[in-house]
Amino acid sequence: MKDKIPIKKRSTKSGLPPGALIHIGEKKVELAKINILDYDEIQFEEKEAKTVEECFPFKDTPTITWINIDGLHQVDIIEKIGKNFDFHPLLLEDILNTEQRPKIEDFDTHIYLVLKMLYYDDKTNEINSEQVSIIFGQNYVISFQEKEVDVFNPIRERIRTGKGRIRKMGADHLAYSLIDAIVDGYFIILEKLGENIEDVEEKMMANPTPETLHAIHRLKRKMISLRKSVWPLREVVNALERSDSSLIQDNTRIYLKDVYDHTIQVIDTVETFRDMLSGMLDVYLSSISNKMNEIMKVLTIIATIFIPLTFIAGVYGMNFENMPELKWQWGYPVLWSVMIIIGISMLAYFRKKKWL
Amino acid sequence: MKDKIPIKKRSTKSGLPPGALIHIGEKKVELAKINILDYDEIQFEEKEAKTVEECFPFKDTPTITWINIDGLHQVDIIEKIGKNFDFHPLLLEDILNTEQRPKIEDFDTHIYLVLKMLYYDDKTNEINSEQVSIIFGQNYVISFQEKEVDVFNPIRERIRTGKGRIRKMGADHLAYSLIDAIVDGYFIILEKLGENIEDVEEKMMANPTPETLHAIHRLKRKMISLRKSVWPLREVVNALERSDSSLIQDNTRIYLKDVYDHTIQVIDTVETFRDMLSGMLDVYLSSISNKMNEIMKVLTIIATIFIPLTFIAGVYGMNFENMPELKWQWGYPVLWSVMIIIGISMLAYFRKKKWL
Amino acid sequence: MKDKIPIKKRSTKSGLPPGALIHIGEKKVELAKINILDYDEIQFEEKEAKTVEECFPFKDTPTITWINIDGLHQVDIIEKIGKNFDFHPLLLEDILNTEQRPKIEDFDTHIYLVLKMLYYDDKTNEINSEQVSIIFGQNYVISFQEKEVDVFNPIRERIRTGKGRIRKMGADHLAYSLIDAIVDGYFIILEKLGENIEDVEEKMMANPTPETLHAIHRLKRKMISLRKSVWPLREVVNALERSDSSLIQDNTRIYLKDVYDHTIQVIDTVETFRDMLSGMLDVYLSSISNKMNEIMKVLTIIATIFIPLTFIAGVYGMNFENMPELKWQWGYPVLWSVMIIIGISMLAYFRKKKWL
Amino acid sequence: MKDKIPIKKRSTKSGLPPGALIHIGEKKVELAKINILDYDEIQFEEKEAKTVEECFPFKDTPTITWINIDGLHQVDIIEKIGKNFDFHPLLLEDILNTEQRPKIEDFDTHIYLVLKMLYYDDKTNEINSEQVSIIFGQNYVISFQEKEVDVFNPIRERIRTGKGRIRKMGADHLAYSLIDAIVDGYFIILEKLGENIEDVEEKMMANPTPETLHAIHRLKRKMISLRKSVWPLREVVNALERSDSSLIQDNTRIYLKDVYDHTIQVIDTVETFRDMLSGMLDVYLSSISNKMNEIMKVLTIIATIFIPLTFIAGVYGMNFENMPELKWQWGYPVLWSVMIIIGISMLAYFRKKKWL
Amino acid sequence: MKDKIPIKKRSTKSGLPPGALIHIGEKKVELAKINILDYDEIQFEEKEAKTVEECFPFKDTPTITWINIDGLHQVDIIEKIGKNFDFHPLLLEDILNTEQRPKIEDFDTHIYLVLKMLYYDDKTNEINSEQVSIIFGQNYVISFQEKEVDVFNPIRERIRTGKGRIRKMGADHLAYSLIDAIVDGYFIILEKLGENIEDVEEKMMANPTPETLHAIHRLKRKMISLRKSVWPLREVVNALERSDSSLIQDNTRIYLKDVYDHTIQVIDTVETFRDMLSGMLDVYLSSISNKMNEIMKVLTIIATIFIPLTFIAGVYGMNFENMPELKWQWGYPVLWSVMIIIGISMLAYFRKKKWL
Repeated sequence: MKDKIPIKKRSTKSGLPPGALIHIGEKKVELAKINILDYDEIQFEEKEAKTVEECFPFKDTPTITWINIDGLHQVDIIEKIGKNFDFHPLLLEDILNTEQRPKIEDFDTHIYLVLKMLYYDDKTNEINSEQVSIIFGQNYVISFQEKEVDVFNPIRERIRTGKGRIRKMGADHLAYSLIDAIVDGYFIILEKLGENIEDVEEKMMANPTPETLHAIHRLKRKMISLRKSVWPLREVVNALERSDSSLIQDNTRIYLKDVYDHTIQVIDTVETFRDMLSGMLDVYLSSISNKMNEIMKVLTIIATIFIPLTFIAGVYGMNFENMPELKWQWGYPVLWSVMIIIGISMLAYFRKKKWL
Repeated sequence: MKDKIPIKKRSTKSGLPPGALIHIGEKKVELAKINILDYDEIQFEEKEAKTVEECFPFKDTPTITWINIDGLHQVDIIEKIGKNFDFHPLLLEDILNTEQRPKIEDFDTHIYLVLKMLYYDDKTNEINSEQVSIIFGQNYVISFQEKEVDVFNPIRERIRTGKGRIRKMGADHLAYSLIDAIVDGYFIILEKLGENIEDVEEKMMANPTPETLHAIHRLKRKMISLRKSVWPLREVVNALERSDSSLIQDNTRIYLKDVYDHTIQVIDTVETFRDMLSGMLDVYLSSISNKMNEIMKVLTIIATIFIPLTFIAGVYGMNFENMPELKWQWGYPVLWSVMIIIGISMLAYFRKKKWL
Repeated sequence: MKDKIPIKKRSTKSGLPPGALIHIGEKKVELAKINILDYDEIQFEEKEAKTVEECFPFKDTPTITWINIDGLHQVDIIEKIGKNFDFHPLLLEDILNTEQRPKIEDFDTHIYLVLKMLYYDDKTNEINSEQVSIIFGQNYVISFQEKEVDVFNPIRERIRTGKGRIRKMGADHLAYSLIDAIVDGYFIILEKLGENIEDVEEKMMANPTPETLHAIHRLKRKMISLRKSVWPLREVVNALERSDSSLIQDNTRIYLKDVYDHTIQVIDTVETFRDMLSGMLDVYLSSISNKMNEIMKVLTIIATIFIPLTFIAGVYGMNFENMPELKWQWGYPVLWSVMIIIGISMLAYFRKKKWL
Repeated sequence: MKDKIPIKKRSTKSGLPPGALIHIGEKKVELAKINILDYDEIQFEEKEAKTVEECFPFKDTPTITWINIDGLHQVDIIEKIGKNFDFHPLLLEDILNTEQRPKIEDFDTHIYLVLKMLYYDDKTNEINSEQVSIIFGQNYVISFQEKEVDVFNPIRERIRTGKGRIRKMGADHLAYSLIDAIVDGYFIILEKLGENIEDVEEKMMANPTPETLHAIHRLKRKMISLRKSVWPLREVVNALERSDSSLIQDNTRIYLKDVYDHTIQVIDTVETFRDMLSGMLDVYLSSISNKMNEIMKVLTIIATIFIPLTFIAGVYGMNFENMPELKWQWGYPVLWSVMIIIGISMLAYFRKKKWL
Repeated sequence: MKDKIPIKKRSTKSGLPPGALIHIGEKKVELAKINILDYDEIQFEEKEAKTVEECFPFKDTPTITWINIDGLHQVDIIEKIGKNFDFHPLLLEDILNTEQRPKIEDFDTHIYLVLKMLYYDDKTNEINSEQVSIIFGQNYVISFQEKEVDVFNPIRERIRTGKGRIRKMGADHLAYSLIDAIVDGYFIILEKLGENIEDVEEKMMANPTPETLHAIHRLKRKMISLRKSVWPLREVVNALERSDSSLIQDNTRIYLKDVYDHTIQVIDTVETFRDMLSGMLDVYLSSISNKMNEIMKVLTIIATIFIPLTFIAGVYGMNFENMPELKWQWGYPVLWSVMIIIGISMLAYFRKKKWL
């Protein structure tokens, strides 16, 4: 999501047949990592798979199996999973294309979700985005990430310890938990952005500089890209909740409704932030023009007082032979008095005009 | 609703299992207060409960019971009520999370509402907001507030004295009365804001200062946050009115329609205020630029009159040996005349150009 | 509708039970006036009722009865009518609250309409607004106005003389006629506003002053409040036309469609006016900034020509003992030539730059 | 559609009973002209009717009859046609009111359409608008125009010569042809406006003057009024195409779909023009402010160079008795050097700041 | 799509009967080229047809036939194909009118699509647009292009070599492939535009000139016209996917859904670009006004320091006989000190005001 122009590399695919498997996006890890969790209410098993084939036996067990794959550049892994689980080629293509828009697709025996996981990089002050694909069927969930991020760890921990309802419920509840974890990440982003906005606002109130303006615009642009992930996310969660797929049990729907409420809250906050930034921009622009006015006023006051006085001084600096005032005894002090009176009345005029 | 960045503390929950009961928000009272009203057309009973268990016997009586709880930080109270009344864990989680967006959820045997109660703090000149959760079933209403606010007192009084229809009607009518009381509070807020807007406008017309601008922006931001509570409120009341739940009797619907009309009136007023504030901003900005023009005009007039005259005076202040004008008898008065003529014709030009 | 902050006095009601009858709004007449018209195709009767009870006998006659009440502060009249005609308490409450938004409510045996009647006050140059409530059943129409306005007189006249179809048709047609009369009033308002806009535009083209700006803003605000009455009016008429109530006969629907078309025309015109005012604001602002540019140009031209020349004159006004130029025979005229050449080339430069 | 405030004369009607026949609008021709075309696949007859009664015999023939009436101020003609063809009084009222909004009304035995025909007046550079009403039944089409415009001539010619499908098809196809001819006229208008926009843009690029601004605003206002006719036109054509009236045969629908596509293209173009004009306004405003900056830069450079130098010259023009520099042999040339160095370093500073 | 006013030549058609075949648009190739591909899973045949009649035998074979025609000005070819394949005259008219808006029309036995193919001309830096019409039936696809563009070559290659699924699937899949190829072209355009935007932004950050402004406006205008093709494209693809036509097989729908997702991604990117350009415009305008402020500050500082000093120097340049200061021994150095103190305190004041 960095501050960059989107749509990169997409064009490398044009001309290829649909369903051609090519990884579009950065290679973010050296070697893909395959993690398997298999559980039901009673038993629990966890293992790191060395080869993708180790996952396949779990397919037909009655227990819930969660296969998590970190790293997408090893196309053959995706291909083998696709063949074994009987996924549509276009689905596999979408997993590999990390420029995807969040979406949901229902293939009867399984549901496919693409989401964007966001996390804040404190070093670069950027929002980074990873694409997460989740496929869930009757008794399995397969998740694909671009690289290992620890946002799913609490869920793993809950499964391991058997805390909460998760062990008692189906694959749809596990899929819900993953989505919930991703949406929770958005709140952390919003908190960070909220702090940034407050910072910039404080600085602006103290001393508005062009740097403030750039900070506001950087934040605005972040909002634009955040919005771009959030709106489709909301649609996806809504479609999932309203889906009539038999894969989603009734008691999961209320949880999905809850996630849906969270996405709406995220959208609300993003929109509020946008409004606040627009307001800050207005305040910035009018502070600047105010400062300009201040400067102009000083210039005008100084200039309008001294230009006429300088003219008068210039007049009595002329070398005409016949200038009787120059010879008067009190000429000089009288002139001073005149000039002081002019200056004071000018000031009075400005005060009356409320320029001082 | 204070002038602050929303989304606080939400992030403390991320990673927890759904339905985990944690109080999100400020602790506003020392000890939760439980107030019970039990009534039907004939009898009436009121008591302050010391322990939450005192509420439970009322659950199965045929009379209408209103349990009001002020203070949300004692999580165990909420938990016990939830267990006794058989509420869903997510519902309890929502009661405790005071960063909630107004919403309605229908659980067949009871309906759950989250609303925002607004009140104006005259000392800080801020709008404060409390979250109110209302759950009502066939013969009970349970309301949760963050702290004791007296907006429900008139309803209590009506029940005590048996005034109005309230004692003759069901739990749905009581729930309606609570909503009505909350929406009435919005009108008081709007009146206060209306007065503020008029104040700022008057000041602006008299003398537009940067302070005026900040006041306009503060009001604008208040509108943004007001809007954020009002629009979902409208949706909630609308959903309640159109709900096909058996909990809502037909003769209550017309009252709900009435509240719905009020929420629309609130929204209309908020939108009108927004339009008025935008208009005021425009007027402010053009007054400022007008003042600037005034200043520039004065500068220009003074400068364009005296700069040429000063030049002329400068010329006759030169020390060339051979400057015949200097020796002329009438040189000096003639020059004065010339300068006066130049000055007057400049003024005439400015008048023609309508700068004076 | 005056240029004021809406929402007044509403708050006096908060805390009261729903259906409590309190008059909200100004008291506009001394004594309520009750006018009764009773007619069918053959017979016709008109009378001014002294007491409200005189109306009741007409309730059960087969003829069409039109009861018109001017003045709302005598709450007991409304109450008695309500009891006799069996109206819902909330309906009566709405009649008395003149801060109502236009709306329609269908009570099966009668339909209740709230509308805003607008008229232009030529003295104050303000748009005034009266709330009109219309209730019609099978064979009666009851209308409530805040004070006597003559907009319904032509209808009365048509009934008296039996002109047009009105005497042959039912209560729904009479109700339609009242709505039509009210909507016709909007066209008069629009014509007045159109004239105002043309006036302001002409003045602005001749000489844009800050006063013009205020006039534009006043008109803009009038549009905002006009809009606020017109949009709900459109909804009301539309709902009436599409209503499946048995009170509305098929041959009346085409007339309602006609009124509906008129309300759309009103809305179109209001939107066009808003666009025109925005355009005028743009033109105003750029005329002002144009004038500013003009002023700056004059200042710059004068200053840039004479400042260098004054410098030169200043140089030869210095008192160095050893300044050979001062002693040259042609020093003075040569310097004049130099200065004139400088001035002319400056002017040529400005002309080239298109500043002149 | 001239650049004027709409809503004129409407008010003359207020107070009259609905269906009262009064001509609202300008009287554009001396005497109404009635033209009759009667045809089927085999035979063809054309005549100018002297009296309206000549049209009536055609009503019951099985052939298609097209009656075209130019001129609306002879109310009795409209009235007689209305009586003979059994049209609703409100329909006749709408024909006579030329301030109508485009609309469609289905009366089962006939369909009534109001459209706006636009044509460009090259002399006044204005868009003029005529109201055209079209009524078609099973075997007749009646069209009403305010004055004779030649846009329907090609259709007449096609009928006369039997070219195209028109003679083989029904009244609905004839009505479609009329609509198509009117919509084609909009493209001519758009072409003219497109040329105007290009002209103004070119002038603006060459030399932006306040006149350009007014031209842009005039074009913008034309767009506003064009839009006002085009959007309802689109609705009308869409309603006609989707209508389930038995008057419209299936093979005509595809033609109506075609016209509908054209109206959308017109709307697209109008919106594009609006966007372009907004862009031009932005460019204009920033060219102006750019020019202003240029001017200010020149002023600043001249002033900041010469003001300090003039000060120095002023210092050595003072008349203190004890000013040693004045007596130095090289005082004068040294001062010149100092002044030249100051001037050059100022220029260098400005160059560094990129002001030159 | 060049930067020009749309709607050209359309008017040449007005007055003609509907279905009249006239080529509207530029003639882009000398001679139309007809290319035929005929294939099924097993066999494959390709040929360049010399006359249009060579295509007709393929019509009734069970194999899939793709007829591609480059060049639209030879109206007779279109006409013959139309007659042979039994196309509606309006369809043929639409093929020839290259000013068409993208659309879809379902004629039961065949579906007609109009699309815009975009490609970037690196020489002129313009986006060019060709209209592509696609008609597909049970076993044929006919595509019409204005001139030969190589975007369909990869599809041809895939058919020739039998790579991918294309040879195994029906005419609907071939039509999908053509649409997919066209939509892929949009991504290339977006990439180019993205690079342009980045370029302009970098230049703007380095040195904002009026040229930057024009570049931003040119890009903005490109976005307007891009948008105009993209939105209807999205509608077309959506309508195709949701169509219940028997011509589209179920396994093609998922591919169409995929193209639909791509069009949404294109729209998202266009909207993001628009937002970015608006942001850049804001930054540009405020950089300019910032520069202006800088200039004004320098002017003000120089002028306010030296104007009073020049006045003082002017005073002591006066020629009054009685000016005691002039005779003081230390008059001159004291005055210098005074002037230096004034200058320094002015600078201190400016520093305090944060103008330095």
